[in-house]
Amino acid sequence: MIVLGVDPGTLRTGWGVVRRVGSRLQGIDAGIIHAGRDAPLAQRLLAIYEGLSAIVERHHPNCMAVEDVFSKHARSALVLGQARGVALLVGARAAIEVSAYPPALVKRSVAGSGQAPKDQLARIVGAILGWTNLPAADATDALAIAITHANAALLKRASAPRANSLPGRSGL
Amino acid sequence: MIVLGVDPGTLRTGWGVVRRVGSRLQGIDAGIIHAGRDAPLAQRLLAIYEGLSAIVERHHPNCMAVEDVFSKHARSALVLGQARGVALLVGARAAIEVSAYPPALVKRSVAGSGQAPKDQLARIVGAILGWTNLPAADATDALAIAITHANAALLKRASAPRANSLPGRSGL
Repeated sequence: MIVLGVDPGTLRTGWGVVRRVGSRLQGIDAGIIHAGRDAPLAQRLLAIYEGLSAIVERHHPNCMAVEDVFSKHARSALVLGQARGVALLVGARAAIEVSAYPPALVKRSVAGSGQAPKDQLARIVGAILGWTNLPAADATDALAIAITHANAALLKRASAPRANSLPGRSGL
Repeated sequence: MIVLGVDPGTLRTGWGVVRRVGSRLQGIDAGIIHAGRDAPLAQRLLAIYEGLSAIVERHHPNCMAVEDVFSKHARSALVLGQARGVALLVGARAAIEVSAYPPALVKRSVAGSGQAPKDQLARIVGAILGWTNLPAADATDALAIAITHANAALLKRASAPRANSLPGRSGL
């Protein structure tokens, strides 16, 4: 199973690809799509769309997991929603199953605590994948989302047939 | 000049196409993309993407105008943002210039008042385009957005070369 994790943003969209072989996880690739700070919004969304589409084309993931963004501020929620909508669309166009996980669940799943600080999360992602050189923060977050989904899928298989009742997984 | 107006939403996305010939406006077509209430979000975004792409393919608009959604509630802003992001992406992929107008500006531009009620706005849209049978509300809103952009483009041409300083037009 190959999972593409995505941490969407209108300036930087982090992505990370993880493969699960049995119960082992391998980190395949990760990076950041820079959407161009000075470009018009529609052009930035196009950069995200084309960037993620190219990654799907290259790595053929079976599923995509996206951070379930939540902002208290309506304005920033609207902006984030636009990037997230484009990420979900890339998954739907490629007929890949798309799941979403709230940030606290990702931290709890990977680092054991929903309050884990970013640098601790990054160190644990590195340890899980055996990577000594970690990519930039947004890409590490995307890897954490991919790891969360890969682990959830393992649990899901173990607890079949109630496959969609995974606690904490948000509906899409 | 052919303008595609879009009123994005994750359940219903209204659209309307207007042609400006000199200072006259013609209504070309309008409708609603029903994204499927029970479908997963990614599938609904795909329906919006495919629906708007087909309209662009059919009518070859020169520009797209989108309602500048604003919600006080972060959750609904996030949801709306996802549909809006997909609409902007369709414009960017077709290399069409995309503009956004806040709802109050659309009402002021079409009905003369930023507080105009929906039914009054709809009647004026019908009168401007000479349509006696108006489409459903979301499609009429999209036509109002298209009319606003067509009028703004006329003003813009009249006041060149300061083309991007149109008052009230929001940056994209």
